[in-house]
Amino acid sequence: MAAFAFDIAATDGAARTGVLRTPRGDIRTPAFMPVGTAGTVKALTVDQVAAAGSDILLGNTYHLMLRPTAERVARLGGLHRFMRWEKPILTDSGGFQVMSLSKISKVKEEAVTFQSHIDGSRHVLTPERSIEIQADLLGSDIVMQLDECVAWPATETRAAEGMRLSARWGQRCRTAFGTRDRQALFGIQQGSTFEALRRESSERLIETGFDGYAIGGLAVGEGHAAMCEVLDYAPAMLPADRPRYLMGVGKPIDIVEAVARGVDMFDCVLPTRSGRHGQAWTWDGPVNLKNARFAEDDAPLDPDSDCPASSAYSKAYLHHLVKAEEILGQVLLSWHNIAFFQRMMAGLRNAIAEGRLEAFRKEVGRRSGANSGGPDSGA
Amino acid sequence: MAAFAFDIAATDGAARTGVLRTPRGDIRTPAFMPVGTAGTVKALTVDQVAAAGSDILLGNTYHLMLRPTAERVARLGGLHRFMRWEKPILTDSGGFQVMSLSKISKVKEEAVTFQSHIDGSRHVLTPERSIEIQADLLGSDIVMQLDECVAWPATETRAAEGMRLSARWGQRCRTAFGTRDRQALFGIQQGSTFEALRRESSERLIETGFDGYAIGGLAVGEGHAAMCEVLDYAPAMLPADRPRYLMGVGKPIDIVEAVARGVDMFDCVLPTRSGRHGQAWTWDGPVNLKNARFAEDDAPLDPDSDCPASSAYSKAYLHHLVKAEEILGQVLLSWHNIAFFQRMMAGLRNAIAEGRLEAFRKEVGRRSGANSGGPDSGA
Repeated sequence: MAAFAFDIAATDGAARTGVLRTPRGDIRTPAFMPVGTAGTVKALTVDQVAAAGSDILLGNTYHLMLRPTAERVARLGGLHRFMRWEKPILTDSGGFQVMSLSKISKVKEEAVTFQSHIDGSRHVLTPERSIEIQADLLGSDIVMQLDECVAWPATETRAAEGMRLSARWGQRCRTAFGTRDRQALFGIQQGSTFEALRRESSERLIETGFDGYAIGGLAVGEGHAAMCEVLDYAPAMLPADRPRYLMGVGKPIDIVEAVARGVDMFDCVLPTRSGRHGQAWTWDGPVNLKNARFAEDDAPLDPDSDCPASSAYSKAYLHHLVKAEEILGQVLLSWHNIAFFQRMMAGLRNAIAEGRLEAFRKEVGRRSGANSGGPDSGA
Repeated sequence: MAAFAFDIAATDGAARTGVLRTPRGDIRTPAFMPVGTAGTVKALTVDQVAAAGSDILLGNTYHLMLRPTAERVARLGGLHRFMRWEKPILTDSGGFQVMSLSKISKVKEEAVTFQSHIDGSRHVLTPERSIEIQADLLGSDIVMQLDECVAWPATETRAAEGMRLSARWGQRCRTAFGTRDRQALFGIQQGSTFEALRRESSERLIETGFDGYAIGGLAVGEGHAAMCEVLDYAPAMLPADRPRYLMGVGKPIDIVEAVARGVDMFDCVLPTRSGRHGQAWTWDGPVNLKNARFAEDDAPLDPDSDCPASSAYSKAYLHHLVKAEEILGQVLLSWHNIAFFQRMMAGLRNAIAEGRLEAFRKEVGRRSGANSGGPDSGA
């Protein structure tokens, strides 16, 4: 089988399930990628991340280029060896976080320039440099093009400008990336909430030609309903035979709705961030373990899970750890949340394979709705 | 074999190696007990603690009685079930931490009264209540008598007063504990740095009769040399056929010197506390991973260890995690340190069994001396 072959095993409506083949192992799709921001999925060992059912994780170019620097990671044998993760890694381009995290950033045709949020040092990121960092220095398996993610809400003019700059940067990334057997390059569709712009973006990306296609510029404040409206048309504009990746998404309900619309890959900091703040994701939405009602709840979060954090520790114990601000509470809740997200992805894959996605989707919607998808605030 | 039988397999000078049999499993001695302060060995899962080679861990009565409370732990099935640790647990009496951590404490013949450092609530701890908490509510395997640990330095009069109160409390604990098949009660020798007081303390404890004997009142500021002076005589005053436990000790060099003088059990927060502060223990003393000299050091901390934290991650990666203040850095360094301490204990056990403790001791002394036993501060 060819590297980065995308074998779709079954479809159910617009949804697909299959396997993306990579030289470092298979990625079962729909796939959820835990975020290993600065060379670590926060609070977890890579063995815990893998045991939770993760086939791939995401690394952040922005964080890694600033600390420990991409050159240092390269001298230490690349990102896989550095963080001791042997399965595939997808790296983002750095662009999104330059714009959201760095102190001052200027986007010009040639490059984006910015100041580090860590020490104020000045940096320049070109499409070519982003490819060099991701593909040559970090040794990423799936490399993302540099793009400009326009803030929401945007005028159509501003959204078009960002989308077209992203398309030109996509071409430059494609050229810089060249031909590689063991690494893939994904383009990123932009265009905010404007259907015509999403179409133009897709046409330009397809003309350039990528190994996979991401949908960018969503989950930036537009809300679930507006995101779903874009997802009603955006995935179908991208090649059906290549993986589609919705960047930075999301809550279980967002993921389920996107899968139903033909998306194959996701990443989000939500499970680990929630875990560090005492929240556990469940089929009925997130619950805050600090809540007094868990103080003597002897049941585990998910007795059917094979993740120890989900099935072997009582909610009463987790409640105690969170109340006492113990690191182990952050570890166990982050681990549970990753395992919960991966169990949900497995549920989605099975539902698609068995032609019952609609029932699965309704069930998730009903149960999430019962909790409004927001943090638990009950007594 | 009887519960709490202490089988000494070999001796080397005053040092002994063997096994303390408990209903929840064997404890290989000399033994190091990681401290699970508030129902968790900080930052680690119990599986990581066990994988590091720990046969037993310590729980703190003071912390647990305040949060989540001993009654709650009892309702949740006891401390083993609560924290998911099936091997033996030793609990301290709460006395030491009442005196060192609580806001206001008053020691009287009947009881010690104190205010919680968490919420200022008032509490009373009698010898009988300490036994009830440890033996009946937490379900500890090895229960410690309540004692008064006099602050160092102390006058002989003050030290005698605290030692005699401890002896009387020991009798009350003995009576309250009664006869139990599956739990053991240890007495605590006091007397500060006064040999005559240590002797009187030992005689009183032996008259009361315990399953094991601790040496209290050391590692409270007197320093390594003064501690060793007391250990030149204190262990030999205690029954040779029962385990001897040096409370709250210590650095590797302290442990090695105490083992050479006939001590069998130890506990200390040092490995986990050091780990949370970026320090790794090595045969050459502690090193601070934040130090720039580790930035591109591709070697693991201890290639011969079977603990992944010691052998599978590079010092460069640990350096990065510590610099970036990642939780995983605290986890891996705590794990490595526990594994390092347990490897040292295994080294001690083997050295005693093979009659080469003196060589082992000299080697540890030489290498620790090269680093002064203090935190690494070099460039």
